[in-house]
Amino acid sequence: MLPRGRPRAMGAVVLLLLLLVVGFFLFGRDPEYGLGTTATLDEKPYGSRNRSASSSQLLLPSKCEMLHVAIVCAGYNSSREIITLMKSLLFYRKNPLHLHLITDAIARNILETLFRTWMVPAVVVSFYDAEELKPLVSWIPNKHYSGLYGLMKLVLPSILPLSLARVIVLDTDVTFSSDIVELWALFDRFSGVILLWLDRLQQTGWEQMWKLTAKRELHTLTATSLADQDIFNAVLKEHPNLVHPLPCVWNVQLSDHTLAERCYLEAADLKVIHWNSPKKLRVKNKHAEFFRNLHLTFLGYDGKLLRRELFGCPNQFPPGAEQLQQALAQLDEEEPCFEFRQQQLTVHRVHITFLPHQPPPPRPYDVTLVAQLSMDRLQMLEALCRHWPGPMSLALYLTDAEAQQFLHFVETSPVLSARKDVAYHVVYQDGPLYPVNQLRNVALAQALTPYVFLSDIDFLPAYSLYDYLRASIEQLELGSRRKAALVVPAFETLHYRFSFPNSKAELLTLLDAGSLYTFRYHEWPQGHLSTDYSRWREAQAPYRVQWSADYEPYVVVPRDCPRYDPRFVGFGWNKVAHIIELDAQEYEFLVLPEAFSIHLPHAPSLDISRFRSSSTYRNCLQALKEEFHQDLSRRYGSAALKYLTALQQSRSRA
Amino acid sequence: MLPRGRPRAMGAVVLLLLLLVVGFFLFGRDPEYGLGTTATLDEKPYGSRNRSASSSQLLLPSKCEMLHVAIVCAGYNSSREIITLMKSLLFYRKNPLHLHLITDAIARNILETLFRTWMVPAVVVSFYDAEELKPLVSWIPNKHYSGLYGLMKLVLPSILPLSLARVIVLDTDVTFSSDIVELWALFDRFSGVILLWLDRLQQTGWEQMWKLTAKRELHTLTATSLADQDIFNAVLKEHPNLVHPLPCVWNVQLSDHTLAERCYLEAADLKVIHWNSPKKLRVKNKHAEFFRNLHLTFLGYDGKLLRRELFGCPNQFPPGAEQLQQALAQLDEEEPCFEFRQQQLTVHRVHITFLPHQPPPPRPYDVTLVAQLSMDRLQMLEALCRHWPGPMSLALYLTDAEAQQFLHFVETSPVLSARKDVAYHVVYQDGPLYPVNQLRNVALAQALTPYVFLSDIDFLPAYSLYDYLRASIEQLELGSRRKAALVVPAFETLHYRFSFPNSKAELLTLLDAGSLYTFRYHEWPQGHLSTDYSRWREAQAPYRVQWSADYEPYVVVPRDCPRYDPRFVGFGWNKVAHIIELDAQEYEFLVLPEAFSIHLPHAPSLDISRFRSSSTYRNCLQALKEEFHQDLSRRYGSAALKYLTALQQSRSRA
Repeated sequence: MLPRGRPRAMGAVVLLLLLLVVGFFLFGRDPEYGLGTTATLDEKPYGSRNRSASSSQLLLPSKCEMLHVAIVCAGYNSSREIITLMKSLLFYRKNPLHLHLITDAIARNILETLFRTWMVPAVVVSFYDAEELKPLVSWIPNKHYSGLYGLMKLVLPSILPLSLARVIVLDTDVTFSSDIVELWALFDRFSGVILLWLDRLQQTGWEQMWKLTAKRELHTLTATSLADQDIFNAVLKEHPNLVHPLPCVWNVQLSDHTLAERCYLEAADLKVIHWNSPKKLRVKNKHAEFFRNLHLTFLGYDGKLLRRELFGCPNQFPPGAEQLQQALAQLDEEEPCFEFRQQQLTVHRVHITFLPHQPPPPRPYDVTLVAQLSMDRLQMLEALCRHWPGPMSLALYLTDAEAQQFLHFVETSPVLSARKDVAYHVVYQDGPLYPVNQLRNVALAQALTPYVFLSDIDFLPAYSLYDYLRASIEQLELGSRRKAALVVPAFETLHYRFSFPNSKAELLTLLDAGSLYTFRYHEWPQGHLSTDYSRWREAQAPYRVQWSADYEPYVVVPRDCPRYDPRFVGFGWNKVAHIIELDAQEYEFLVLPEAFSIHLPHAPSLDISRFRSSSTYRNCLQALKEEFHQDLSRRYGSAALKYLTALQQSRSRA
Repeated sequence: MLPRGRPRAMGAVVLLLLLLVVGFFLFGRDPEYGLGTTATLDEKPYGSRNRSASSSQLLLPSKCEMLHVAIVCAGYNSSREIITLMKSLLFYRKNPLHLHLITDAIARNILETLFRTWMVPAVVVSFYDAEELKPLVSWIPNKHYSGLYGLMKLVLPSILPLSLARVIVLDTDVTFSSDIVELWALFDRFSGVILLWLDRLQQTGWEQMWKLTAKRELHTLTATSLADQDIFNAVLKEHPNLVHPLPCVWNVQLSDHTLAERCYLEAADLKVIHWNSPKKLRVKNKHAEFFRNLHLTFLGYDGKLLRRELFGCPNQFPPGAEQLQQALAQLDEEEPCFEFRQQQLTVHRVHITFLPHQPPPPRPYDVTLVAQLSMDRLQMLEALCRHWPGPMSLALYLTDAEAQQFLHFVETSPVLSARKDVAYHVVYQDGPLYPVNQLRNVALAQALTPYVFLSDIDFLPAYSLYDYLRASIEQLELGSRRKAALVVPAFETLHYRFSFPNSKAELLTLLDAGSLYTFRYHEWPQGHLSTDYSRWREAQAPYRVQWSADYEPYVVVPRDCPRYDPRFVGFGWNKVAHIIELDAQEYEFLVLPEAFSIHLPHAPSLDISRFRSSSTYRNCLQALKEEFHQDLSRRYGSAALKYLTALQQSRSRA
């Protein structure tokens, strides 16, 4: 479950928490806080928070003082790692936070979505482009591409706003076990120099200093590469007065076991754990266990619980949060469909491209398979990869803990870890009803090819489908000359193990032998009635079909197709409504003569079971359908009449 | 998800955290800590922990001082509630804890199992029988049966050991948001009186006092009932010097919103939240949200992460923990079957009878259906209840968060909440392989009838099976005269919806029509070969069959039958090994002519998928089989030879 074999941090002494500005401009060293002393800093800063702060507003962290944190974060893995740090930070914090995130384009894309959907009150996030800092450090020879991002910590002052007086700089691989305000309080020790930072007089001094040192190191020591920590260490060796070491509880490192043990045996309260030697997590040592459990605590922590306001501080609400709260407050809890209403309004945290991903090269007729799943369908992924060699965009509905299990699952599967063109988007669970259409929309929004195949996770496409679809799109001039949805006929097998047909001819043989059925032939024939399976048997060319009530084929459409209606949560009508939307927008339905996909057996979902057993559930779905039709009439006028008629007919049948 | 509509706490002012002894024997009131003052107690106790404690060992909580906590807990729901309290307590604590649990038989049974399997270091648990305290308080008229347990807090001193100097008494419905040592440190304020407790001089005083007050209240106020808090309040009114009010952060109550808000606006650090008005949790008020999130944090917290040692304190290991750690340390991580070995050694936390349960009345031929499941099979439960009207013992493999979803699922299902004869045992998830046989053993151990039907969750029994089995047991004199396993023939349907046959005749019709198959007819016929389905078709009376390789029928056996072999984790051979064990112990296999159960379709499990796709997985299973046979030979000698021969034959076929 834990990351294995990541590179060890470079320096033996990693000063993880840089009191960046102040920490390096302190004149005079306070012996009380040297490494290995027994003192802790609990008493003073904690107690002082609750005293009147009027006399020294700037120096003591007052109750609602904004704390500033800067983190350099680049790439998929760091974007995942930073979340655990954020959760531990937010869990213990009681102050407003301003996060200054220096990111590459990948991390920015991921983290912007995450923080927008996380909606944590009293957290401000600013992004800075790491590209701007690259020229400032790229002259330093470096072993890893990622080392460049480490070096950026040297030049942070040049990108952060001038108005920023103090900032705590964190690595992404740390876990807090205390309130960061206690660390912030350490700034108070250096009251004489804080203003120096404000007017940036010293900044020049610092820049000259580290550059000189770095150049000298490169010359005299014939170093082939320098990491940020090497430079910090060299500067500190030359200018010992500059540094104010943090009490070791603020940087309990796993790379140097002896030091760490001396630290925490003396100071009972750990503040920050630094995972700079993750390989050590696997040691079955009692202390490693303690650290690991703290880390796992936040790895699996349900991030939505951090959407809590601060007490007694003016709360800065994230965008949309207040409107959302009002909308939720207006819901009537006694209404029978309250659960549905609440679920529709829920904003799920979304972590797009949870795993490293290689976007597909731009190709004019390329198609992305779009689907959504939860934990109980993970076992479909390998087979799906074998059947669909093209790009995929998959939304996964998971808890935070399940996301880690999913990570482990992919890492231990040779088939899955070999595929970099599959993008996995984690939508975090919240609420009792499955938000099927919200999931589909997340996966759809992240598809990067001009066309999408809107499928379901229980289906395996024909082996040739990916190539055939691209050829068909080109041939039919889909998107450019023709507004059409290409229908992929759906079949099903009832057997756990069966040999997948290699061609339409083989499929028809199985169909005739009763080993395969057309999809939901027994339970819901109207869902695929319009596809006209008997015509498909004989068809040599694509043929157009007309919409009919409850039609829900699997289709290929341009990426800019209408979104799914998010009001449909749980079981029922979620695809039907989307197909109506396509028809209302005058998409032609063209059935492809060689395309097919096959549904594998599974147990009925919890939602379908609830649908069957609860009349309330069915009534709520009916109410949703009617509201959908009202909206449809508003938007499409009399053209929407046929859908309403169909609905009324189906109701009178029911 | 949250408990709804529980009764409100009785008193308006609920002094939740009773500093039981000292708190009530304090002479003189310290104005600094009155309700509504702005001071908090952070500075002193926290800081003092790290100073030398030699001068006042008894008074200051030294780093490794044992803290004592007493809780009265009775019944199924309180036993569930107390876990969330325990998790929050253990999460923040840094001291060894001694829990004094005053329980009824139900809570003791549940909590003994839980703490034994939880294996939290540096936690000692002592149980006291609440029955002993009943006579001391039962003379007080009381509204609820449960009120009696509340009143027991008045007489705790009479049951706790004499050697116990100080104890913090907690209600089960509180959540900690800080280290309990800070609360313990409040004892230091009362140094003069601690010794009074030790020699119990004052105890008599207290007993007389509260009894007098209670009697007077009953007389003069014509009260029809008194809760513990009413009596506390009355005593305090008469003897205001006795009480030392806790700072309000130590008892943030949701029953009195105004007071609570005044408290936490002034003191930023909340210490303990008291859920004495859980209805309020549903208010979409920003403060309620904060409280709720803290509560949910620990509700869903993975309890196994609390199996962490204390630093710098001599650790008291729970029974078995050290041996387990040694066994785990001896495993070779590079060995291909490491995951299997680790999973076999894993001790899962077990919460037996997670929901209220009515044990079946003792009946000589009664049968309990035994099965296990995880979250993705919840939808089977309602159908199972309809098919099996008798007692069931089900083990559920869940995360802590899923256990709450399960609770919600049962509460919102009329079918499930009506059934009190179904016992649900939660086994908490830990590790990547499904511990199928450990789960079965938990469910089997908790079956309370003389016979058990060892089934699987995907099967629905014939409607008549429960009655028929009891009649058959009686008729065949199973258990007393005959050592036999009654075989229930297994079938399967491949359709999601089908009409369940009401009789053997109907079943045979479906079988002939190809709507039903004998179980795993296509994939694994040897699993049920010995059952001899063609003989069963015609059979009018039970008939004996012989064991054959890979036989794994569903059987009815006496409750004291052999356990399942826990080495089989994940997919494969878990039932086969059990049937071999029965055969080796000379159980006759008797097929019942009118019994049947039918398997419903579902997707292949993650474990079966891994089995199919990974040769390592298959090799590990093979290794387990061979070890199992070695053990078998050791125990049964030459009688076990036939199983080994069968294994070798199957290997040469593979």
